[in-house]
Amino acid sequence: MQYDLIVVGSGAAGLAAALYAGRYKLKTLVVTGEFGGETSTAGSIENYPGVQPLDGYELMKIMKEQVKDSGAEMKDGKAVGIEKAGEDWKVIMEDGEAYEATAVILAIGSRRRHLNLSNEKELTGKGVHYCWTCDGPLYGGKTVAMVGGGDSSVKGVNFLAEYAEKVYLIVRGDKVHAEPVNAERMEKLGNKVEVLLETEVKEIVGKNMLEKLVLSGGKDLVVDGMFIEIGFDPDTTLAKQLGLELDEKNFVKVDNMMSTNVPGIFAAGDTTRHFGEFKQDITAAAMGAVAATAVYEYIGGFAK
Amino acid sequence: MQYDLIVVGSGAAGLAAALYAGRYKLKTLVVTGEFGGETSTAGSIENYPGVQPLDGYELMKIMKEQVKDSGAEMKDGKAVGIEKAGEDWKVIMEDGEAYEATAVILAIGSRRRHLNLSNEKELTGKGVHYCWTCDGPLYGGKTVAMVGGGDSSVKGVNFLAEYAEKVYLIVRGDKVHAEPVNAERMEKLGNKVEVLLETEVKEIVGKNMLEKLVLSGGKDLVVDGMFIEIGFDPDTTLAKQLGLELDEKNFVKVDNMMSTNVPGIFAAGDTTRHFGEFKQDITAAAMGAVAATAVYEYIGGFAK
Repeated sequence: MQYDLIVVGSGAAGLAAALYAGRYKLKTLVVTGEFGGETSTAGSIENYPGVQPLDGYELMKIMKEQVKDSGAEMKDGKAVGIEKAGEDWKVIMEDGEAYEATAVILAIGSRRRHLNLSNEKELTGKGVHYCWTCDGPLYGGKTVAMVGGGDSSVKGVNFLAEYAEKVYLIVRGDKVHAEPVNAERMEKLGNKVEVLLETEVKEIVGKNMLEKLVLSGGKDLVVDGMFIEIGFDPDTTLAKQLGLELDEKNFVKVDNMMSTNVPGIFAAGDTTRHFGEFKQDITAAAMGAVAATAVYEYIGGFAK
Repeated sequence: MQYDLIVVGSGAAGLAAALYAGRYKLKTLVVTGEFGGETSTAGSIENYPGVQPLDGYELMKIMKEQVKDSGAEMKDGKAVGIEKAGEDWKVIMEDGEAYEATAVILAIGSRRRHLNLSNEKELTGKGVHYCWTCDGPLYGGKTVAMVGGGDSSVKGVNFLAEYAEKVYLIVRGDKVHAEPVNAERMEKLGNKVEVLLETEVKEIVGKNMLEKLVLSGGKDLVVDGMFIEIGFDPDTTLAKQLGLELDEKNFVKVDNMMSTNVPGIFAAGDTTRHFGEFKQDITAAAMGAVAATAVYEYIGGFAK
């Protein structure tokens, strides 16, 4: 089956790209991967401009409806390979199916690292969070824990401290690795923040809501919320097959119109670091719309 | 009154910036200018990812509610000056009031040029349109006119021809000034497109909906819709006072985090050309969110 565009991924970037591409009358296929990307399991989205607080999965369902209304097709399944096929690109699916298109938008996100503890998945959005920018404000006057020892987790502590009564920073190593300016800010917060070095979360306890953490050494830590900020793992399999230029953190390099170094291949959303470490639904959706526009220009503006 | 951040403008960029800034607990003031920017008079917004088709004014009202919920303040009025005040910036309003802040985000948009004919304003969204990407799909099988002789209007014709039965291109001059690739595409459309050179729209006729145009020479042209694509006028008054670096089309130059060349001054939305000529609500909102994040970093993460 021949398409103008295949969008790989169905998070905010992929769905926004497909919505725009469909409206450009490009013959467009979205191969979904895990539907809705990280957003669909993120719990309530409170900071998407234009949408009152809404469950992430519901937000992605609205985008999916828009994609269908635009005329783009969607197929469930994971793309495991992309290769050159004459002038076009062939996207190979896990089940062996393959689809061809003139252009491809990679919108496969980057997976936040998890602790891989039991209850972690079950309690996500119910006391367990990965995005402090998004969910920190839920914890006004409460006690929260931040897990991670890098700069982002310290920035997260500084942000959480604007809302929470008490913030624990749980660090596996014997040292916090933060930019001096962020470390200083955290110090100024005084005893509102408690840093627990050489400490690991061993257990996440709670039935329908997070109740407490069990730390290494067996100590209980009762918190209302926890934020896990231990990095991102971009999946570079497809990018490497395609010979895409990556940055030092393995994200795909793009220009302002979301073009990669390989003609016909575009990337959008958290697969890139176009806006640095700032990774939000609103930025992903914008990048998707931009990438679709770049594809429309690339293809010549006409569906085949 | 001392703020951390003053956002100048209340379109998608300004409101998204304020929403994020409020959640960062920055003491934030939005001076609105014309509430909702271009969006509020754009008619139905059909391509904002995550929001089913909705009147632009309604979309802006949702963002305004979100801004209020975030704790940011809003004041009606137009900013007529911005000047340095010690370490801070003073924003001077039309009524003589002044507000100070550590940082300013310029989100004043850029005004699409209008024909300035009677009925033009009254029929906007009712047959008269400025954004073909947004509203072109409304005209499936219909007859439409594009007004303008530049590359964007030719791109618009190519886009409209995917939907409309017939497209007239009305050009004031004796020649179309388009990139060759776009001009060629238009030629390939054959007699679906009719180019009327040395022709002006003299009258827009219609009561509640556009009915027809009267062209120079007195000829009537019956169309279902018209698109006016005669350029943008960025208002450079504030940018020039601030010494901001502008590009060749008078848009404010920004980096990927929406910083200008002047520390403490940021810009977002259609005041910039970060995504080239692609100017949409979704991109404006994303740039606003990014700019607020840059301000949060700039200020040091703490409200005063």
